[in-house]
Amino acid sequence: MKRLDGRTVDEMRKVKITRHYLKHPAGSVLIEVGNTKVICAATIEERVPNFLKGSGEGWVTAEYSLLPSSTQTRNPRESMRGRVTGRTHEIQRLIGRSLRSVIDMKALGERTVMIDCDVIQADGGTRTASITGAFVALVEALETVYNPGKAFPVKDFLAAVSVGVTKENTTLLDLCYEEDSQAVVDMNVVMTGNGEFIEVQGTGEGRPFSRSELNELLEKAEQGINDLISYQKDVLGGELVWRVGREP
Amino acid sequence: MKRLDGRTVDEMRKVKITRHYLKHPAGSVLIEVGNTKVICAATIEERVPNFLKGSGEGWVTAEYSLLPSSTQTRNPRESMRGRVTGRTHEIQRLIGRSLRSVIDMKALGERTVMIDCDVIQADGGTRTASITGAFVALVEALETVYNPGKAFPVKDFLAAVSVGVTKENTTLLDLCYEEDSQAVVDMNVVMTGNGEFIEVQGTGEGRPFSRSELNELLEKAEQGINDLISYQKDVLGGELVWRVGREP
Amino acid sequence: MKRLDGRTVDEMRKVKITRHYLKHPAGSVLIEVGNTKVICAATIEERVPNFLKGSGEGWVTAEYSLLPSSTQTRNPRESMRGRVTGRTHEIQRLIGRSLRSVIDMKALGERTVMIDCDVIQADGGTRTASITGAFVALVEALETVYNPGKAFPVKDFLAAVSVGVTKENTTLLDLCYEEDSQAVVDMNVVMTGNGEFIEVQGTGEGRPFSRSELNELLEKAEQGINDLISYQKDVLGGELVWRVGREP
Amino acid sequence: MKRLDGRTVDEMRKVKITRHYLKHPAGSVLIEVGNTKVICAATIEERVPNFLKGSGEGWVTAEYSLLPSSTQTRNPRESMRGRVTGRTHEIQRLIGRSLRSVIDMKALGERTVMIDCDVIQADGGTRTASITGAFVALVEALETVYNPGKAFPVKDFLAAVSVGVTKENTTLLDLCYEEDSQAVVDMNVVMTGNGEFIEVQGTGEGRPFSRSELNELLEKAEQGINDLISYQKDVLGGELVWRVGREP
Amino acid sequence: MKRLDGRTVDEMRKVKITRHYLKHPAGSVLIEVGNTKVICAATIEERVPNFLKGSGEGWVTAEYSLLPSSTQTRNPRESMRGRVTGRTHEIQRLIGRSLRSVIDMKALGERTVMIDCDVIQADGGTRTASITGAFVALVEALETVYNPGKAFPVKDFLAAVSVGVTKENTTLLDLCYEEDSQAVVDMNVVMTGNGEFIEVQGTGEGRPFSRSELNELLEKAEQGINDLISYQKDVLGGELVWRVGREP
Amino acid sequence: MKRLDGRTVDEMRKVKITRHYLKHPAGSVLIEVGNTKVICAATIEERVPNFLKGSGEGWVTAEYSLLPSSTQTRNPRESMRGRVTGRTHEIQRLIGRSLRSVIDMKALGERTVMIDCDVIQADGGTRTASITGAFVALVEALETVYNPGKAFPVKDFLAAVSVGVTKENTTLLDLCYEEDSQAVVDMNVVMTGNGEFIEVQGTGEGRPFSRSELNELLEKAEQGINDLISYQKDVLGGELVWRVGREP
Repeated sequence: MKRLDGRTVDEMRKVKITRHYLKHPAGSVLIEVGNTKVICAATIEERVPNFLKGSGEGWVTAEYSLLPSSTQTRNPRESMRGRVTGRTHEIQRLIGRSLRSVIDMKALGERTVMIDCDVIQADGGTRTASITGAFVALVEALETVYNPGKAFPVKDFLAAVSVGVTKENTTLLDLCYEEDSQAVVDMNVVMTGNGEFIEVQGTGEGRPFSRSELNELLEKAEQGINDLISYQKDVLGGELVWRVGREP
Repeated sequence: MKRLDGRTVDEMRKVKITRHYLKHPAGSVLIEVGNTKVICAATIEERVPNFLKGSGEGWVTAEYSLLPSSTQTRNPRESMRGRVTGRTHEIQRLIGRSLRSVIDMKALGERTVMIDCDVIQADGGTRTASITGAFVALVEALETVYNPGKAFPVKDFLAAVSVGVTKENTTLLDLCYEEDSQAVVDMNVVMTGNGEFIEVQGTGEGRPFSRSELNELLEKAEQGINDLISYQKDVLGGELVWRVGREP
Repeated sequence: MKRLDGRTVDEMRKVKITRHYLKHPAGSVLIEVGNTKVICAATIEERVPNFLKGSGEGWVTAEYSLLPSSTQTRNPRESMRGRVTGRTHEIQRLIGRSLRSVIDMKALGERTVMIDCDVIQADGGTRTASITGAFVALVEALETVYNPGKAFPVKDFLAAVSVGVTKENTTLLDLCYEEDSQAVVDMNVVMTGNGEFIEVQGTGEGRPFSRSELNELLEKAEQGINDLISYQKDVLGGELVWRVGREP
Repeated sequence: MKRLDGRTVDEMRKVKITRHYLKHPAGSVLIEVGNTKVICAATIEERVPNFLKGSGEGWVTAEYSLLPSSTQTRNPRESMRGRVTGRTHEIQRLIGRSLRSVIDMKALGERTVMIDCDVIQADGGTRTASITGAFVALVEALETVYNPGKAFPVKDFLAAVSVGVTKENTTLLDLCYEEDSQAVVDMNVVMTGNGEFIEVQGTGEGRPFSRSELNELLEKAEQGINDLISYQKDVLGGELVWRVGREP
Repeated sequence: MKRLDGRTVDEMRKVKITRHYLKHPAGSVLIEVGNTKVICAATIEERVPNFLKGSGEGWVTAEYSLLPSSTQTRNPRESMRGRVTGRTHEIQRLIGRSLRSVIDMKALGERTVMIDCDVIQADGGTRTASITGAFVALVEALETVYNPGKAFPVKDFLAAVSVGVTKENTTLLDLCYEEDSQAVVDMNVVMTGNGEFIEVQGTGEGRPFSRSELNELLEKAEQGINDLISYQKDVLGGELVWRVGREP
Repeated sequence: MKRLDGRTVDEMRKVKITRHYLKHPAGSVLIEVGNTKVICAATIEERVPNFLKGSGEGWVTAEYSLLPSSTQTRNPRESMRGRVTGRTHEIQRLIGRSLRSVIDMKALGERTVMIDCDVIQADGGTRTASITGAFVALVEALETVYNPGKAFPVKDFLAAVSVGVTKENTTLLDLCYEEDSQAVVDMNVVMTGNGEFIEVQGTGEGRPFSRSELNELLEKAEQGINDLISYQKDVLGGELVWRVGREP
């Protein structure tokens, strides 16, 4: 079976990560996954939320937003409506939780890393592209405060991908917007470099799904994430890769 | 291994659903899962959201709230803060999406069923108890507008449960608050009467989790959900049970 | 004259107060006045508003909310609208002010008691039921921090009732929703165990009212409140009753 | 006993109502009660709230605001805080309800009269001055749409006053700010030209109050309101006075 | 050419400033420019914004609001809508910036002067009347905290006026509402007593404007502002005038 | 005198406009002015604001936002704070007003063009870059609905630039952030292809400015805008340039 853009069912779109994309934040990338483009920036602030004050531990939190002009139909600006939608809340909680899972908060120390994922162009998979790109921006930012005598606060690699089942019951890796809007089952998977799960979020939007479908989806996701992490390593380069997960 | 309250690892807490709990809404139950207590109400409104006007199809949507006095530490009232938290948004989207998956929107016709899940007392598993209770309230409400010459708009049974992995790497079914706050992996599963998945949401909060752990969690969840659906059938009684999923 | 539910004009609906209704707050009751049901909870917080810091005095404040499913027609959730209505503001100010009037703030010390009145089912008289129930929850909560060597911070009993005048110019005690929505004069009265007024709020919604009508309304209210306070004493039991208003 | 400003206990402050105070609204006055100054404006809009559409009946509603510079200590602007306080809500509901009680909504027809009470300078009694002044602005506005062949939609005169009990147990009429802030009992009374009550709102802020105190307060209020209505008649002039309450 | 109200093209409307207009704030005036009437009040608070803490310098900030009843068509109250419009934001930023330009923040010391401009009646030029009036209220307020041994913190006089070009290409000074709503070019100018500019804001709303038109507008504005500053001096009186801009 | 980046006082930074920058909106560019980068998108919607319904005329409106990671210090996201700042309001009103001045609303017909200016990186002059870029995006969008038998709705070219005076009293063209933050006079100028003004906004932030300084600033601005419009013409190409301002 050939897909809309000629890909095979287990083929990812072309992925490109441009590092040091912005001038001001400590870390920043532009990640492109096909036509989906997200600016991911990481800013380090010398403060922590109240519940961590005095604990010696740090925090990572994320915000996510779609530019109004990023979507097929213009998406009203959340600042003008005075509230963030439930979808945005859900996505930024997912990004923050995923990134925190690979950070050693003691090694980070009493600092907050603020992650901003701003979608410039949306064509499906914006939340998974955000996680994959934000991980690189986060490593880039943490390098700027790295103390060689201590552990680097990143414990493992992290990437995310979407998988889904079409109306015709085909399982696909990395859905573009058009595929996603027609899928009957939709799943986002976040995994570590070690091959284990951080998040599995599967939804039967059009119909329920079986255990064997779940297994097939997880296999495709694992394969996509392996490719993404391998690319993240190329982009970060040998020294930074070596540091991830290393004891001091 | 014995748990805090003496349960075995694959034992659910005592579940009780009281039907017709409130006087005014079309359907309403009080669901108790151990010390967790949720009032689930279903109100039928003769209108649909704009995107469905003229489509002949209906809609189901849900709101979720914790009473301030329901939690261990008082939970500030969202109405007083003027905004709903991200957690609430996430939960009410999950409840709505899950219930919609078993409703035949054509058979429902141009109506909205508004589901309200108000947690009176919280001791872990409030979102899964909300889904399990709301399903019963929804069936109760739809009975009041049932037209015997047409299909009953409920296609299948639906229930939800939480599962998790403890620090000691034990997999548990139906976590109470204290277990949940110490779990390293946390998963919510929503399934149909047909034994298939509607939602699988697993999070490695304390550490990543492996494929075999995922499988073990899903098995425990399936077992718990079978029990819950069996109890839902007792509570709804033969005639309503017969109607679910039946052609007209 | 017989009323809708067979009561005489000066007969209250059946009142029931269930103590220790919730697990987490320091004090909590379910009060039922006919079909009106309100959960009243009292939480003690070891902080005071800014204007009392360092004064040695405490504070009591209240919040009130209708569950969306508590009313005849579903009542939109204030948290989703992002603002509390004027009616809610007015009621929670009344509840807080009434309870503060019987508390010895010096004896309470620098603590805030947060009262939550959540209406589960509404059938008229929700604000007066809230005051009557909240008083019991407040006493229950204050018992948990009672220091026998000092004055108990509750100076007197407190209860509230509604009275009104019908279109046919009959004065009624304790109006249910249907009576209330047709009344031409509506009055809420809050009194102490000592037989004095804390609040008198009378409104001529359908027509002005005369001094003699006002007197008749106050007499009926006094009679109802006496009954309520007598029932509060039964519910609280001898030891707590003895403590109210007693010097150390 | 002499009061702070030399008045006797049953003496009102000097009252002055300046008609046609603003250029744009249909009716407008500046009311001064001692140092309390309120601009009351009435605007007629050719629309009604949804619940009255097609009913043939009109509506009167009110808004109230303190200028930031009107109070002893600057009062933060509600528009900048993004919310109206509970106190403001309570007062504007009182003003609207009071004015509606003397309007014949059928005779008004499907129109809304929007009342704006903006306090320029506050020295106690701003809500009662607002009601007394708004009544005159309302009559002034309704004259602009008066149809001589039909009933004038104002059924009776309306004025309001505050009364209270001091720490020394003296009952006072028309409290200024300093008296009000020290009063132990505080009461606002709204009455018609016919000598009947529209609103009685008494609060025992410092201590409970007895029936005989209530009676004394109501007598003082009645006397003050008689004076106010007599002055309203002078200000409105013979023809308008004649029209109030007259059949067509 | 004669204007609507008989003025010549370079004639200002009648201006009147009433000092000490309110009882509570440190400084306050009513400024009337034709039918435009604004209450300007200045309150001194013994605190500064965070960015100035410990700097030894003060701050001046302004808020601006239209009373709902001040405009031809009633203007909805911003507090009820829960947000301030962009127009209001723009105007209050202009007022604050203009006033700050003539204040010596070191001489002011760590204090904030809060300026409130509340428009009672609007007939064009409300923002420029606000600046002109607020300057007088500010001087009045600063006199109350003046330390004769130090510099008076006001460095120069300040006033503002509007100018514009009509459809018939006539340049006008001080536009009333009707002129303003038909102007094709609109300009607000703020100048000091020294004859220099603080703000020049010109907008070609109906068509672009040339350099020579700009020059003509600025000349008319300068002339109007000279008159206004001369009147401010009369109103403030010799001693205060002498103090402005004087070294200690 | 040489500037920070080696420019002369009347030299603009390098400007680059990339057309068709985004996939979804009708028109979109990335404009880079030195390190300042803004995505400008134009979306055409087949509706108009209420006040234009049935008028046959269209509308152009703009929104402006800084990405949180675009500024030197991270700029909190307005959507999370629930309000748009006054600065943002002021800028988006300026952009909308400027663009409307060169549009023939009759020729546009009953459509709204929604302009989104999202600043990706900020280094001074973001509002003027937004106007200059948005003009190109607007022309690009209007081409997609162009009817050759009718007038093209763009009447003239439009660009904007900032100018300012340094502490050393030097007049500069096109200030970068560091220059801007130290300038004592700051001016934004918007001009048409015809060499006339649309907006002149000059502010003496550090000191007042004289008429001769104003003249010098306007000359530098005119020169910069000529260069910008010349570059806009290159970027749009002959056919589109020919169409601007042409009769049908």
